[in-house]
Amino acid sequence: MNYASEALRKHYEWRGKFEIASRAPLNTNEDLSIAYTPGVAEPCLEIQKNPALSFELTRRWNTVAVVTDGTAVLGLGDIGPEAGMPVMEGKCVLFKALGGVDAIPLCIRSKDVEEIVTVVSLLSGSFGGINLEDIASPRCFDIERELKCRCDIPVFHDDQHGTAVVTVAAMINALKIVGKELKNAKVVTSGAGAAGVAIVKLLMAVGLRDVIMCDRKGAIYKGREGLNAEKTEMAEVSNLDRRKGGPGEVMRGADVFIGVSGPDTVTPDMVRAMASNPILLPMSNPDPEIRPELAFEAGAAVVGTGRSDYPNQINNVLAFPGIFRGALDVRASDINDSMKIAAAHAIADLVSDAELTPGYIIPGSLDGRVCPAVAAAVAAAAHSSGVSRIKVQQD
Amino acid sequence: MNYASEALRKHYEWRGKFEIASRAPLNTNEDLSIAYTPGVAEPCLEIQKNPALSFELTRRWNTVAVVTDGTAVLGLGDIGPEAGMPVMEGKCVLFKALGGVDAIPLCIRSKDVEEIVTVVSLLSGSFGGINLEDIASPRCFDIERELKCRCDIPVFHDDQHGTAVVTVAAMINALKIVGKELKNAKVVTSGAGAAGVAIVKLLMAVGLRDVIMCDRKGAIYKGREGLNAEKTEMAEVSNLDRRKGGPGEVMRGADVFIGVSGPDTVTPDMVRAMASNPILLPMSNPDPEIRPELAFEAGAAVVGTGRSDYPNQINNVLAFPGIFRGALDVRASDINDSMKIAAAHAIADLVSDAELTPGYIIPGSLDGRVCPAVAAAVAAAAHSSGVSRIKVQQD
Repeated sequence: MNYASEALRKHYEWRGKFEIASRAPLNTNEDLSIAYTPGVAEPCLEIQKNPALSFELTRRWNTVAVVTDGTAVLGLGDIGPEAGMPVMEGKCVLFKALGGVDAIPLCIRSKDVEEIVTVVSLLSGSFGGINLEDIASPRCFDIERELKCRCDIPVFHDDQHGTAVVTVAAMINALKIVGKELKNAKVVTSGAGAAGVAIVKLLMAVGLRDVIMCDRKGAIYKGREGLNAEKTEMAEVSNLDRRKGGPGEVMRGADVFIGVSGPDTVTPDMVRAMASNPILLPMSNPDPEIRPELAFEAGAAVVGTGRSDYPNQINNVLAFPGIFRGALDVRASDINDSMKIAAAHAIADLVSDAELTPGYIIPGSLDGRVCPAVAAAVAAAAHSSGVSRIKVQQD
Repeated sequence: MNYASEALRKHYEWRGKFEIASRAPLNTNEDLSIAYTPGVAEPCLEIQKNPALSFELTRRWNTVAVVTDGTAVLGLGDIGPEAGMPVMEGKCVLFKALGGVDAIPLCIRSKDVEEIVTVVSLLSGSFGGINLEDIASPRCFDIERELKCRCDIPVFHDDQHGTAVVTVAAMINALKIVGKELKNAKVVTSGAGAAGVAIVKLLMAVGLRDVIMCDRKGAIYKGREGLNAEKTEMAEVSNLDRRKGGPGEVMRGADVFIGVSGPDTVTPDMVRAMASNPILLPMSNPDPEIRPELAFEAGAAVVGTGRSDYPNQINNVLAFPGIFRGALDVRASDINDSMKIAAAHAIADLVSDAELTPGYIIPGSLDGRVCPAVAAAVAAAAHSSGVSRIKVQQD
């Protein structure tokens, strides 16, 4: 199917992918007096006395803002805030369909870190969480860092952390297949933007030690000129031998390649030069760093991509609905590493050892077991890491 | 019924009065590829080429932000942004139920004019209109004025203009009953906040000439000390004889009293001192400036209040759903006086001359004829005043 023309046709037909529905009857004057004036004064006064009751008496407990500035939308780049909205709306309906979360799409007409932080932080009393989306790197790092300081609700840049969680899940199971351990694995990544940095950080949080990150100029190493703050930080902890060169050089002998860069970065010869039974996760969308059939021909043991038409789709959809569902359920003040790691294990664990094959390392994007499993794991991790604010919350 | 306790009970049960619903199917991987990646890239690129297509390919054409800072919620005053949310949610579900408008409640944690203007204006690409709500006077005037400059979508402070529209509608029909003309009527208002100022401005736009506004210190007149900018402006055009004193003095001989202040401002003796067949619109909620039964005993010909348990409820619900429905239908860039006046006439005209009695000057709050009639009149007025951006738009 030609998704492009069909998607355009359907978007004209839908005229928006979400709408508002009412949970309160409004048929009689009495209904009006209870849902609106004069009755509504009473819940208002209760919240005034105890602002935490906004999580009980309004939709805040279940509401997430999906926020973009339109500067890094899909692989399309800086297309502007309004042009990013179809993606935000899509995300919002996925939040509802998979996680029962009420997500509201907001695009911001600014590329200024301070302005974006002001807008989002001043609105945070309306929401139970903030999902940042498709904001260009390295600005996304500053925005998220500052918002995490200013907001009393979780702030989560999905392009970083959602991708990282699902990649870690895929890695856990792919390494099982090839019988290797993360702590001994040599990993090379291509792409050092939002996703690349977050993937490496989360992999290191679960034990990865030997990793080389590449950007357009090749391997990142301590002392390389022109590194931004985030890459400078990564150069401190990765590529400790300060190897230089492009993926073609640094992939020699590597156990794993992870791509979040662009198409055709990796050749079959580069795969052949990797260690035995190499794992390749070329996730660039729509065109991966190397086509799976080429990777397998060159000896790949396991391949995962971002595409739905190949096995092992590494898709954020596996993570964000359950992560926010779990965070909202325990009214978490943050989504921390322990919650992300719990989410990754929950996703990986849904593929039993008996089921695990090179063509099935990760559940399908619409697998109904994923969100509840992730939510439960995230809620438990929020408790044990001290960021939950209630014990149980049920719809 | 005890609305307070019942409303609190229901708000705990509802846990929020709105939720998000999906307009796109999400059952298969193909659905996902059309509503989300990779297909969604196509509508994004179309909007990038022509940002106006955000009104065709996303929900923007039908979406309104209901925005408060929580500083003047109902009659409760400055109760804080989170505590204002039950009212905003109520407004949002009324928008949907009566006008088919998708309204999103947003509370802003700031009382600073520039901050509030920044937040709302930078979000305006997400919406087709902005409904400001329950923002304290006189800050509300500055916020609305500045937002009207910065936004390319309508900005409408409902406490001002919604109230003014419905009051003008009530006045049109009340004056018919007593056989008086607005251009010759003497009007006294009590309350010179958001609603009071807007009511007088809109009445003057339809012909009122002789009006005295009172605030807590009595009649407003040119040269009175300590007037804010808005009252100073009103002093230029009202009370041209510079009469002084409270409502008790300046109501003598008046044809109409309009109250948007507080309870028990008006006594039966003050009504007796008005002109023959006086009209009283004591709209303070929940307790009017004078109880209708006392007003009638003292000779009132027509009485309207803000309450649902008396005849002639002057309720914004008659205005805002239809006004925004009409403005959105023609993608108006503004909601101007001509559209507000058209709305007032549309509401008034729904009560035919044959039906018109002192107990029925205005349709009931949930009268299903109101929104379509107002929307059609507002859309037509937008066209003729040059602020519409499309000819016809239908769901």
